[in-house]
Formats: sequence, structure tokens, C-alpha cells
Amino acid sequence: MERFPYPLARVGIIGGGQLGRMLVKPAKRLGCTCVVLDPTPNSPAGQVAGHQIVGHYRDPAKLRELVSVCDVTTYDIEDVDTDTLTALEREGHRIYPQPGVLAVVQDKLHQKERLASAGIATANFIAMDQAEPRAFATFGYPLVQKARRGGYDGRGVVVMKDAADYDDRLSVPSLVERFIEAEKEIAVLVAQGLDGERRAYPVVEMCFRPGENILDLLLAPARIPPEIAAAAQRLACRAVEAIGGVGIFGVEMFLTRDGDLLINEVAPRTHNSGHYTIEACLTDQFEQHLRALLDLPLGATDQLSPAAMINLLGAPGRTGRPIIRGLADALAIPGVSVHLYGKATTRPYRKMGHVTILDQDIEEAKRKAERVRTLLEITGEEPL
Amino acid sequence: MERFPYPLARVGIIGGGQLGRMLVKPAKRLGCTCVVLDPTPNSPAGQVAGHQIVGHYRDPAKLRELVSVCDVTTYDIEDVDTDTLTALEREGHRIYPQPGVLAVVQDKLHQKERLASAGIATANFIAMDQAEPRAFATFGYPLVQKARRGGYDGRGVVVMKDAADYDDRLSVPSLVERFIEAEKEIAVLVAQGLDGERRAYPVVEMCFRPGENILDLLLAPARIPPEIAAAAQRLACRAVEAIGGVGIFGVEMFLTRDGDLLINEVAPRTHNSGHYTIEACLTDQFEQHLRALLDLPLGATDQLSPAAMINLLGAPGRTGRPIIRGLADALAIPGVSVHLYGKATTRPYRKMGHVTILDQDIEEAKRKAERVRTLLEITGEEPL
Repeated sequence: MERFPYPLARVGIIGGGQLGRMLVKPAKRLGCTCVVLDPTPNSPAGQVAGHQIVGHYRDPAKLRELVSVCDVTTYDIEDVDTDTLTALEREGHRIYPQPGVLAVVQDKLHQKERLASAGIATANFIAMDQAEPRAFATFGYPLVQKARRGGYDGRGVVVMKDAADYDDRLSVPSLVERFIEAEKEIAVLVAQGLDGERRAYPVVEMCFRPGENILDLLLAPARIPPEIAAAAQRLACRAVEAIGGVGIFGVEMFLTRDGDLLINEVAPRTHNSGHYTIEACLTDQFEQHLRALLDLPLGATDQLSPAAMINLLGAPGRTGRPIIRGLADALAIPGVSVHLYGKATTRPYRKMGHVTILDQDIEEAKRKAERVRTLLEITGEEPL
Repeated sequence: MERFPYPLARVGIIGGGQLGRMLVKPAKRLGCTCVVLDPTPNSPAGQVAGHQIVGHYRDPAKLRELVSVCDVTTYDIEDVDTDTLTALEREGHRIYPQPGVLAVVQDKLHQKERLASAGIATANFIAMDQAEPRAFATFGYPLVQKARRGGYDGRGVVVMKDAADYDDRLSVPSLVERFIEAEKEIAVLVAQGLDGERRAYPVVEMCFRPGENILDLLLAPARIPPEIAAAAQRLACRAVEAIGGVGIFGVEMFLTRDGDLLINEVAPRTHNSGHYTIEACLTDQFEQHLRALLDLPLGATDQLSPAAMINLLGAPGRTGRPIIRGLADALAIPGVSVHLYGKATTRPYRKMGHVTILDQDIEEAKRKAERVRTLLEITGEEPL
């Protein structure tokens, strides 16, 4: 029988945001210690890890410092320096998902090519090194232009309905995709173990505010027929198999009006769409990620209760010290769990926290979530 | 609408053990910061709080230092200096449960007298300042002798079946109770808000190993008829009303073979019998305790799934750095959540962690718990 001296492992986390913060909790619970690398002292993850290296997650020396004191290293963010990490991996350090996997996924064009070459359905796409009106017109509108690198939470993505939207173009190497009129946007979390085992979580439904690309409301499970849900889970597992690597992956997809499933994007990390698993599932996504990278058995993904989730974004026009309004009113609603991320400063639309709502009836969970959204506000002490 | 600048509150925790550790997590999630007072640097709670005052929880100067930097202070342990805390409370510091309540509960005789004077059924009892054979005989065997102060986890409690057991007597001021042949030992967690609102959790069943007084296996909900469960919840609420104070209380009781309910003891804090609430209930006992002491609305106590819980005790005969055996095998069982407390040194029977097992079938949860107990062991690097 295996035998672990305590601590089980020293876990390094590149980036000290909310994903790292939520990863630290199960890590400590399972007998690990944690070290966080982040440029901001007392980062959200650093506050609970107890040990933070203050430095940038693209600084090779700092990355080396982190990886050297840890048994295994993972990420809170995708936008890291994979060259340094690849070199560190070659020296024998355990880094998951593997830097080579991250390098593929970081580049949206390479990610799409990888998926397409595995025969996985995605929106049609072309590469575009430099935006050109004719190339857009030839590809045809409506389309979506995505920066190959560095975009997230709606940044680096432009939807163009027709040629008049050309002014909104991105002037960086990009990927141009067919705009999909989705019936629903859905997501599936998939855990992939060191032994290649894969486990999918229930399919969730993501609602976005018109014109924004930040998740506005999440419903778990998605309100779709069971056969489509099963097909989405199979497709997500195939996508993660094609990408490779170890850990949790968030697989976003479109369900078209014709009932087809198209993969939109694979995130090689714990995912905003999986925060509900903390309250609602037998094994939450953060513990699952750890189990994968520590080569422990993957946990059951069963969901105990329907759930809704909303992000708490910094109010527009304000910054500075966060002010929380409506907390008591929100907590008076049964089944509400509030997660604040401990960020010292708010900014417009910054992710400051999230709220999960459990209810036996998914429609009631949704109504409660909408009510929480009207009640709870994170604003700032100072005008922008 | 109420308006909280972040952090919502600085929460002081007297004692840095596992209860404090599990309290820090929801505290941070709700936007609080935490300060722990404990004599051992890097205590279980200190590891996650990020701020620990190293000092004894009976040291008046250290208690003052803690309370002075916090908006509200609570306890991880009961055995604290209530005189100092009472003085600090008079100066206007918020300390919950109130030191006066703690003073009553700390003394098992005063606690019983308080319950009895409120007309709450308990085992018959007498005070005994000094053990005397004649006094025991007059009271009659079988009996239980309990030290008035300082006992926990089986320490300070002696069961005497007959006069031959007199040699085991405690030589401290004590309480002598009728020994109850319990059909089951059960417990109910009750949350009491600042506004006097009370909410009871489901009744749980506590199984002890013969001859030991440390909880061996917990089943939630208890396998008892619903009308008895409802009566137990009502009785627990009456007991907590009689004791008074703010926060979570663990109410232990006997269910006799005749179907009567007798209060055994009230613990003025989060309780070992309530750890299952982290995974199984809409609001866990730690968040509930915080909601009470921050004057936020109490949360729903609904249970989402049957649960079993076992404590992970340090193996006999060993000490030093903990060695964890069988973790992977235990985690391979669906629904298993392992909680290690981060204690740097193990000792025989020291509480090193606990495991919660969720399963739709309580009997299956129990079988899984028993299996986890045979698989998972925490031993030490050194012989004693």
C-alpha cells in the first residue's frame, strides 16, 4: 500500500488569482502545502496558501524558483511562459498540464488545428496573420475574429455581423471563425488522469449578456435532452483526448439550432463554468484537478443538486477598496453560497467573486440567481 | 441596504486547531480576514488564516492582543480564560459565544444545573467536590463521574459499573450522573443568531468504540423514526435557548431504550458531529457559525445526501512526522472526502483528520466508512 509522509506534496501554483485560491483549499485538505507565484503581494491564492513568491509568472528566474521548491506545479492562468516551463520539465520537474500541451492550447489557431485534425467538429476557420477587408469578405460574414494569444473574458474576441463591423477588427495574428447562431452555449468539464482515465462532469449551460463575453449566468445541469447531454460529454472527452495532458479541462461548445455540437474552445485548467461543483458535486473541480496531477484516483463527478452560478463583477465606473452591498439580503435566500476572492482593489467588470445557488428545481435556482444579481453589488470606494 | 467595506470583518479565533482551520475557509469566502491565537507556530488554523499570534489562549495579554485587532472573536476550543474575555467584552469587544455563556458551559455542573432549571431532561446528577465511596454508593451504580472542568475526547470521564470500579475515580471536583443505557447516542447542531433565531440541523447518530469516548463513526441522518428526530431537534433548541449565546452549539443526547431523550452535553462551538455538513448540507456548520456571529441571516440546514463520517486518529505507539497510508485506495471509493488537519506531529489517538462519505444509501455510506477506516491510517515516523 502506498505511503505518503506529510506533506503529501508541495504544490506550486503559477498565478495567484481565484482559481489558485480555490485550488489551495482542497490541496491543504488532502495534506499538501502550497506555494503561489504572483506579482501582487497577498494575492487571492497567496492569502490562503501561506507561501507566495512575489514575481511575475512570465519571469524565467521566478518560475524556476517556484518549480524548484515544489513537487508538482500547475497553473491558475494560461498566459505563461511555456519555453521556460518546457526547459524545467526536461530537467525532470513535474508540471501539469504539461507545458507542451499548454503551448498548443494557448495559441487558438494551433488548438483549433489540433481539434480539427482529430476530426472534432468546430466552427469553420481560417488563419489570418493580418486583418484584411478582402480576406474577411472572402471568408464571409457573420464571423468571429479571435486573437491567437492572450485573450480571455471577452478580450481578444470580435464579432462582425457584416463588413460595417470591420472597424472593430483586431490588429494581431488571429483566427477567423464562422459565427455560430447557437441555440445554447454549453460546457463540459473533463478530468484527465496521469493514467489516461477521463471523467466528464454534467453538461452546464452558459448564458452571456448580449454583446459581452463574460459568463453571466450558469445553469447546471444544462436544460437539454439527455441524449444531447451524453453526446456533449462524449465530444468533450474526445476533445480533451486530442489535446492531451493531465488535469481538469473546461470544454466550451455550441449547441446549434439544428442540434449539432461544435467545440468552441478548450481551457487547460479549472474553469469558471465549474465553480458550481464546489457545492453541487461529489468531487469539486479543484480537488479533481489535484487528484489528477498527484496521480490519485479521479473522484466521482455526480451532481447532488441542481445549481445556478453568477459571477460578481466589479461595478462600472468605480475602483479602489471594494464595497459589498446587499450581502445580508442575498444570504437570506436559502441555498446561496457567496465566494469573495479577497481582491484588495475592484475595477469595472473585474471578477471579484461568484455566487452558487442550489435548489432542487433548476428554474427556481435560476430565479434565485437573478434575484441575487439584483441584490448583491461590488463597487469601489473611488470613482474611476 | 447594508454596505460592507472589504474586508467584511476581521475574525479572531482563540485556538488554532482543526475547528479554527475549517472556520477560516468560509470566513475568507465571505470576505473576512482571520487572526488565530495559538501557542504552536504554523498551527492548523494559522496555516490558512495567514495571520497567527503565537501565544497561549489562556494568556491575558495575548487574548487582549487578539481581541484588539479583531472586529469579532470566537473560539476553536472551550478551555479558555473567561475572566479576561469577560473584561474585554465589558470594554466593548464582540466575543461570541459570550464569555458568560462559555463560563457556564465550561463547568459541567453549572451547565447541568442550567439545563435542569429550564426543565430540560438530563440524567440525574449530583455535585461531588471530592470522591467518596459512600457518596457513590448512596447515589447508586452504575454511574458516570465527570470532571467539572477541562475534560474532552474521553478525558475526564469515568464510567463505574459497580463499587469495584471506584479505583478509577477522578480526584477533582466533579459531577456524578446516572449511567444511561442508551439505545443510541445522537446529536443535533443548533445555530443561534444575534436576533435569537434558532435553526437545527438534522439529527445525527454517534457511534463510539466500546470503552472509548472518541466518536468512531457518525451517521447523518440518524436512523431513528421521524417523530423522535423532530422531538430531538425541539429539545436541542430548548437546551440552546436555556444556555443562551450566539453561534453554533453541538447538543449531544441519549435516546433511551424506552424512547426518552436526555440531554448529555452542550458544546458551545462547532462540533465534531457536524463536520459532515461541509459536504452534505446547504450551509455548513462553520459558515453558519460565522453568519451568526456576523449578524448575517442564518443559512438553510437542509441535507442534500446521507453521509457518514469517521475521525482519523493518530495510530497507537507512534509519534513524529505523520505518515499517511492508504490514501489512494480510500479516494478510489466514490463519495469520499478526506480532510487532513495539517498537524506537523502525530500522537496516539490525536485527531489528525476526518473523512466524510456521501452516498444516497446511508447503510452503504456506513459500509464505505468502515472500509475507509481499514484502508486509511495515520501513523508516525518514530516509535513512542
